[in-house]
Amino acid sequence: MEKLRKTLEGINPLHSTVMEETKAYLDSLTKPLGSLGWLEDTAVQLAGITGKMRNKFRKPVVIIGAADNGVVEEGVSSCPQEVTATVTANFTKGFTGINVFSRFAGCEIVVVDVGVKAPLPQEGILQRKIRWGTDNFTKGPALTREEAIRAVETGISVAEEEVRKGADIIGTGEMGIGNTTTSAAVLAVLSGKPASLVAGRGAGLSDEAMQNKIKVIEKGIAVNRPDPRDPLDVLAKVGGLDLAFLAGVFLGGAYCRVPVVIDGFIAGVAALAAVRLCEKVRGYCLPSHSSAEAGARILLEELKMRPPLDMGLRLGEGTGAALVFPLLELIYRVMTEMGTFAQAGIEQYVPQN
Amino acid sequence: MEKLRKTLEGINPLHSTVMEETKAYLDSLTKPLGSLGWLEDTAVQLAGITGKMRNKFRKPVVIIGAADNGVVEEGVSSCPQEVTATVTANFTKGFTGINVFSRFAGCEIVVVDVGVKAPLPQEGILQRKIRWGTDNFTKGPALTREEAIRAVETGISVAEEEVRKGADIIGTGEMGIGNTTTSAAVLAVLSGKPASLVAGRGAGLSDEAMQNKIKVIEKGIAVNRPDPRDPLDVLAKVGGLDLAFLAGVFLGGAYCRVPVVIDGFIAGVAALAAVRLCEKVRGYCLPSHSSAEAGARILLEELKMRPPLDMGLRLGEGTGAALVFPLLELIYRVMTEMGTFAQAGIEQYVPQN
Repeated sequence: MEKLRKTLEGINPLHSTVMEETKAYLDSLTKPLGSLGWLEDTAVQLAGITGKMRNKFRKPVVIIGAADNGVVEEGVSSCPQEVTATVTANFTKGFTGINVFSRFAGCEIVVVDVGVKAPLPQEGILQRKIRWGTDNFTKGPALTREEAIRAVETGISVAEEEVRKGADIIGTGEMGIGNTTTSAAVLAVLSGKPASLVAGRGAGLSDEAMQNKIKVIEKGIAVNRPDPRDPLDVLAKVGGLDLAFLAGVFLGGAYCRVPVVIDGFIAGVAALAAVRLCEKVRGYCLPSHSSAEAGARILLEELKMRPPLDMGLRLGEGTGAALVFPLLELIYRVMTEMGTFAQAGIEQYVPQN
Repeated sequence: MEKLRKTLEGINPLHSTVMEETKAYLDSLTKPLGSLGWLEDTAVQLAGITGKMRNKFRKPVVIIGAADNGVVEEGVSSCPQEVTATVTANFTKGFTGINVFSRFAGCEIVVVDVGVKAPLPQEGILQRKIRWGTDNFTKGPALTREEAIRAVETGISVAEEEVRKGADIIGTGEMGIGNTTTSAAVLAVLSGKPASLVAGRGAGLSDEAMQNKIKVIEKGIAVNRPDPRDPLDVLAKVGGLDLAFLAGVFLGGAYCRVPVVIDGFIAGVAALAAVRLCEKVRGYCLPSHSSAEAGARILLEELKMRPPLDMGLRLGEGTGAALVFPLLELIYRVMTEMGTFAQAGIEQYVPQN
């Protein structure tokens, strides 16, 4: 708890002066004001995070939290639980989705076992198992409060370690059968929305299985009565080790003044938990894509974020987050290569409203 | 007219067998079925276009049509008409938006003067001026039918020339002050929607100027009565040389079996005109981004397309189209580097519905 407390206290606001300078510079470039949309907004945000107007990221890293969820006993997933361990091990073999996406994006991946319910290969996987999967939240809390805090603090530590080793931007990813159920449960509590609005089909549920998933989430919330004003309580009672770990990664990134890219629905729920623990974390989070999962819209409203990609992705593993890294290279080029109105020989396009 | 007729007759459907094979291969990869969304759909579409399951594009080219619009007399733009010529000339200097985006995306740009109302430098600009800007469509047709056909045929020819020189995928772009007005007018006619729904703020109009823009579009349609079933009539009467030229680029690309990437609102309206001339063109068009222009949603409904990017871009010049090229490299990697379920040691995730 000491580490978490220190981290929360050490997260600072963005550098507002550099943000204003960056905005003014963008407005001097030869284009209609604001016409590069997300690229401009993100240029300003990155400047606020790093304190520099122009940001070239040299070592992007995707941190993937892997863990099992006891709630899969309730039939909420179309996959058997063993798939968590198999896919997590496959991350080290180079042929999974995130392996392909990370080679495309030129980033590293760091796979962290925070609670897979099976032994995993030592090589290529950070061993940070808090416990062997969570408990079934329809029968009691998924985790104790202490376990949830340990998972959050593990996320903070891993983010800090990666920054120490040179990471200058972090992406988030996860692997855990059942984690769209835990994420929907956490989102339902934090947003106050009913389970029926935030639950989605995950890897591919039938209508009947969807109705069951909604009931399971409702039961988990009714049995445990998590306190919406206490994100650690929510993460412990109806969340999971991957969610708590990723919430910690967001906190650790913000503490180190490094941008953290949200992947899809699950990482986004972890980001929301982190923001509820410390509002200042919001400024350090970059959205990546609108997940195809049903609750994504509600999640983005809660986060007050609009992601640049809308590709119907629902693979997880950090694949969406990785796709943002190349776009940051484009922002750097806009900030360094694009001409000003003075150069272009035209007067600034002045919006009339 | 002979060239246009021959092109329309020579456009063939997509290769459906290779599309089915590609779909089956994607379903064998280690991920929930369909979880890569747009990437999977586009992999299948590209296979249908080229007849090959795996497509590596080696020479992407963005073709930019530049032209002036007589309707700017009516005060529909926040920029003076001279900006068309200045920005078009600046494309050869390397510091405009599309120059920066094309270096990022690793593509060439081909700038084509199809009707700028000023002399332009010879170097770096294809000289294909049909005439020196169009007429003000509130007082009569913008172009004669013959001029519109010549502009379309010029687009076909330029696309064919680029393919002959090695282009294996084409992006579309434009520069022309006043062309959100002509595009909105064409879209209003082709979609049957009122001007108030399809007109947007372009580079930045005030509320009052927006009301004027809507009235100007309504007047243009009332004065000229373009026939919605005759896209050439619509392009001639309330369109422009850039729109007609780009419609030709879509036709020429489809004829050569090369994918053509739509940029934003203006290029999208040109694509819609091309699709109305020949429905088979649709299969050769790839959307890129949801333009921030107000009519973009209606346009995408008419095109029945869902673009992968939603970045609030409204610069034009082909900037959005260029951003799709790197994503095609990712599709190639998915098709060549990702493991199958057999390799992954897990059973295929079978959706239950």
